[in-house]
Amino acid sequence: MHKLVLIRHGESEWNKLNLFTGWTDVDLSARGVKEAARAGKILKEQDFDFDVVHTSLLKRAIHRMNSVLFELDREWLPIYKSWRLNERHYGALQGLNKAETAAKYGEDQVKIWRRSYNCPPPALEADDPRNPALQAQFRNIDPKNLPLTESLELTVARAVPYFEEKIKPAMEEGKRVLIVAHGNSIRALVKYFDNLAESEIVGVNIPTGVPLVYEFDDKMKAIKNYYLMDEEELKKQMEAVANQGKAK
Amino acid sequence: MHKLVLIRHGESEWNKLNLFTGWTDVDLSARGVKEAARAGKILKEQDFDFDVVHTSLLKRAIHRMNSVLFELDREWLPIYKSWRLNERHYGALQGLNKAETAAKYGEDQVKIWRRSYNCPPPALEADDPRNPALQAQFRNIDPKNLPLTESLELTVARAVPYFEEKIKPAMEEGKRVLIVAHGNSIRALVKYFDNLAESEIVGVNIPTGVPLVYEFDDKMKAIKNYYLMDEEELKKQMEAVANQGKAK
Repeated sequence: MHKLVLIRHGESEWNKLNLFTGWTDVDLSARGVKEAARAGKILKEQDFDFDVVHTSLLKRAIHRMNSVLFELDREWLPIYKSWRLNERHYGALQGLNKAETAAKYGEDQVKIWRRSYNCPPPALEADDPRNPALQAQFRNIDPKNLPLTESLELTVARAVPYFEEKIKPAMEEGKRVLIVAHGNSIRALVKYFDNLAESEIVGVNIPTGVPLVYEFDDKMKAIKNYYLMDEEELKKQMEAVANQGKAK
Repeated sequence: MHKLVLIRHGESEWNKLNLFTGWTDVDLSARGVKEAARAGKILKEQDFDFDVVHTSLLKRAIHRMNSVLFELDREWLPIYKSWRLNERHYGALQGLNKAETAAKYGEDQVKIWRRSYNCPPPALEADDPRNPALQAQFRNIDPKNLPLTESLELTVARAVPYFEEKIKPAMEEGKRVLIVAHGNSIRALVKYFDNLAESEIVGVNIPTGVPLVYEFDDKMKAIKNYYLMDEEELKKQMEAVANQGKAK
């Protein structure tokens, strides 16, 4: 039996402002920092340990990972960072207020961009400073892989191969893996683990700051998953995530 | 021409208490945290940039590295951690007060243990809880490589191969490398870069918190080195390090 733990980073500065973030490299809010410490404490209380950690190239995930590793006294673990675990790229919506966008385009259109499986938001122009190919952070990645916008489908298409190539073989060798990533890169993996239909994954919300445990059998088939948090509190957190796109 | 930057972590909790630290995993002191931020700021002001970072398995180096990368806005860089960049193992002296040890064994003996090239301090017993082979932190390292004490010579013997195998090839490919490590693992590399005699390296002190730049020619021969700090302040820092082993 193999166990994998996934953690979505806590609230960021832009979540707090209700802006579409995507690949914008904003930091955790003060509340997000606190959530990060809590996730590490929960894992420590329940005697979780790890051999290797994977995260994205975005600082809200990297800071969260550092905080979890600090709480676990595991800062010496090997760390791998990849753009393939980044949040979904939100295209030209990045930096826009979610409520304003909903008021302008209509809640239905925003819901489609946020929650449809294969309908990406409007793409960035190539010369837009938000284009990842123009940013230092992504300079070592082949520009032809870098998106100007992404649907969840496109997020699946780059996150799942990373799992299959870099994480699954280590798990099969018995390594205990922790992934600290983002709402949509985690949803991409959840769809793959549970073999969910497109219509099923669009209804799944990943709460922030709560370790999500997946158990796999010897053939790496997901057999069980659970959050390390009681159900009542979990429900509140998921509703908070689902409500983010509504006009206020 | 290839440039390499080395940084020794700032003051740790045990430096402050004047204890022999070695592989004991103590954190930076408040002053050490401040020094770490300063080193990052200096590198940023002088437009240094990096492609890859190497550090040890000890948290005072890892925290310092995180702080430098934060200041440089380069937290997304790939990071490699190895016990081969750890501080010299101080054997049975780890945890003893430097001044008391000098009073007990004599300043000359302590100076030999601190400053001779090939005379290691008394070794730990195998069942001593300070034995690295008994610690989670080093569980992935072949126990036959883990020391019970080390001279500078033994530190050279494990740090230099790491440079030759993991760092030098990347530099030859044009990668800009940052190493965040410890007084003696940096001295080991300095001896190797400058081809110093044993009698020469024992007189070299590495100041904390100051970026040390090495320049290499196309054949990876070290041609120049300098600290990113003015000479007056640098002299003060080096004297502070040299005075640590004296009885008070």
